[in-house]
Order: sequence, then C-alpha cells, then structure tokens
Amino acid sequence: MQTGYEPTPRTTPTRYRERMHYDRATVHQILDESLICHLGYLNAGRPVVLPTTHARLGETLYLHGSTGGGPLLAARAAPSGLPVCVTVTLVDGLVLARSAMHHSVNFRSVVVLGDARVVDEAAEKRRALAGLLDHGAPGRAADCRAANPRELAATGVLALDLVEVSAKVRTGGPVDDPEDCALPHWAGVVPLSLTAGAPIPVGDLDPATPVPGYLQKRRP
Amino acid sequence: MQTGYEPTPRTTPTRYRERMHYDRATVHQILDESLICHLGYLNAGRPVVLPTTHARLGETLYLHGSTGGGPLLAARAAPSGLPVCVTVTLVDGLVLARSAMHHSVNFRSVVVLGDARVVDEAAEKRRALAGLLDHGAPGRAADCRAANPRELAATGVLALDLVEVSAKVRTGGPVDDPEDCALPHWAGVVPLSLTAGAPIPVGDLDPATPVPGYLQKRRP
Repeated sequence: MQTGYEPTPRTTPTRYRERMHYDRATVHQILDESLICHLGYLNAGRPVVLPTTHARLGETLYLHGSTGGGPLLAARAAPSGLPVCVTVTLVDGLVLARSAMHHSVNFRSVVVLGDARVVDEAAEKRRALAGLLDHGAPGRAADCRAANPRELAATGVLALDLVEVSAKVRTGGPVDDPEDCALPHWAGVVPLSLTAGAPIPVGDLDPATPVPGYLQKRRP
Repeated sequence: MQTGYEPTPRTTPTRYRERMHYDRATVHQILDESLICHLGYLNAGRPVVLPTTHARLGETLYLHGSTGGGPLLAARAAPSGLPVCVTVTLVDGLVLARSAMHHSVNFRSVVVLGDARVVDEAAEKRRALAGLLDHGAPGRAADCRAANPRELAATGVLALDLVEVSAKVRTGGPVDDPEDCALPHWAGVVPLSLTAGAPIPVGDLDPATPVPGYLQKRRP
C-alpha cells in the first residue's frame, strides 16, 4: 500500500530522469496543493486540454464537470473508460542562468494516465463533490447548503484511479557551465507562489458573518 | 488584422457562452501573463498533457522543448503538423457560495487548437528562444550569453499559429439562488495571484551584481 507507483514506459522520460518521483507522498502533495488540473482527452480524434477542478480521495482522482460538457459526453460514449491524461503543475520560481541555455523554471508537476469513468452512484458522487469543495477550502463542504437532487444530477464527476502516475520536480538555482560563471549577468531564482489576498465578502452578506477559519489559514 | 478569432464548432462551448472571448487583446493578455502552458498531443493514440514554457510573438505561439522530448519527436514524425491543443490557465480566486452547487473558481484561460510545426530555421529559432527568455523576464534575452550553435541544436521549438483560439473568463462573486441568500454561511471571493518573492542570487554570484530592473518589476 505504501509503495510508490510503478514506473511504466509512458511515465519514464528520456531526459532528466533524476527529476522524476514515483512515491505517493510527493504525488499526493502536488495534487492536493494545486487548485486546478488540466484534463486531456480526445474529441473526434484530436487532443483537447481543458482546465477543471479536482480532488484526490485516497487513490482516486475526481474531476469536476457538467453533464453537458465535452469530457462528460465523451466519457458517456466510452463505457470501458475515457482515455485521459490529467496534469497538474505548480510554478515555484523563475531560474535565471548566465547562459540562455540554462534558464529554467522551478516547478512541481504530476501526470496521471488512465481511463476515466463517469461517477453515477449517488453516495460516491456526494463524497466526490464534498472532496471538491474541501480541496480549495478544507471544511467548506460541511459549511454550505448541500446539493439537492436536481443540482446533483446537473453536476458531472469523472473518476480516475491513481495507477500510472509520475511526478516531476525541479528545484534549486541555475546550473551554469563553469566557463560562464564569471560572466557579469545576474543569476539566481525569483521565487513564485500562488498567494491569497483578503477574502472579499459578497455584496449582500450580513456584515456580522465572520470569515471562516479555513479561509484565514490560506493567507500568506 | 484587428478583428478577433473566428469561432468554430470546436471553440464554441455548449455552456457558459457568455464567458467566452474571441478578441485578440483578451487572448494575448492571458497568453502573455501565464508563465507556463499545458501542451496536449497524441502518443500512440492516447492523449498526453505536458507543462512547458511558451512565448507569443505576434500571431504565433512558440513552445519550448528538447530535441529528444516526446512532443518534438512526435512533431518530427508528423511532417504536415502535429495536432495539438495548448491551454493556458490563470487562477484568480476561489468563489464561495452559500450553496455547494454555486461554488466556482475565478480564472482566465485560453485554448489554442492547431497543428504545430518544428522550428528548424536558425533565425526563427533564435527569435523564438529570445521570446521565451523575455516572456518571464522582459529584457533577459539581451542580458545573458546567447546560445551557441551546439546549444541551439539541442533545443527544440514548436510553432503554432493562432487561428482557432478562444478565451474563457470567470470573474466576480458567487451567484446564489435567491432562496439561499439568507443562509448563514460566509460567501464571497478569496483573491489569488502568482506572487514573486525577493530574487535569490546563486551562491557564487559576485555580491556587487545588481538585481536587474526587469526582475524588480515582477515584485508585488
């Protein structure tokens, strides 16, 4: 259970193998931190990549959709599962080297390959939707009006098991060739992070309503 | 020239059509602000989505790769162009509604569909690489050692014309159903933005080297 994901030819790159990670802790942390993912699937034989929200519950990744949206319609038409690639990327910094060649970006990414299925069972769908709400604001699912049956029916959820999975991580400063290190150009890293500002209440909110603790935790 | 991108069936969604934009200014701004993109292509008939860096020069999107990487190899094997979907997404905020159903994310995304070609001509490749360097740090291409012929040969660049393009934007607060507005749950937006920290010089940098102005502009 606690072993990592088994590398496959599709999750083994030809370059930068030292940046690859297959342990569950690294993969889970990246999936859990990123607020959105990019879902790739085929539409009429061509690749389509759409952003959406996701939540990981154990070893299953749930993806938000709408029942009339492209991925859900494609998944309905693929009873044995819709071939997908779900990719999540966190940008951690700009890496500036003395040489053009060694410029880079610090990042953490996860790629999940597999066949996604439509979640139809009501209990699993409710768990998935709670996970999607709690993903961005842990505790929110218990602090809002739950979906009624009509709303539940209008929401689409895809499920993808975490089996063929890899993470790729680049950290640290630039690595210039020795002969370039005396060049006069500034070199280093500009750290980047997705930062939350002060919560903005909706116009008609009772001013006495406190900001929930699970939102205050998101502040830098 | 200044008209927008012509919508096609593939860039016309079935839902939320009011969130779609086809004008060049909106599309360019989103492409230019995002530091990374997600490139979707087919590998052995299955979708693959990889993060990479990009730069827009006029109406062409250039994508960074390596000559031995998957997308470049696939594009080499597709002389009439590699079918791709390049998607860029900026996350601007968490949207919390009183009802689970109306939770959302404020975002700006661009989807570019088309057939990508490998850039082989040296002058175009040098322009593209300069664009990639300047994309994250405008001015950097002129302030580092340019690629030598060996480095140029080891770098792969794909080009994709901006023809079949759409932007999707969600802004503003939650929109709850009227009967939910008296519920006691906090509702509103948590603004989010990718924020730069203080530049960190590489360990062996001459301490007298000033931080370039084009990096200071990135500070919040």
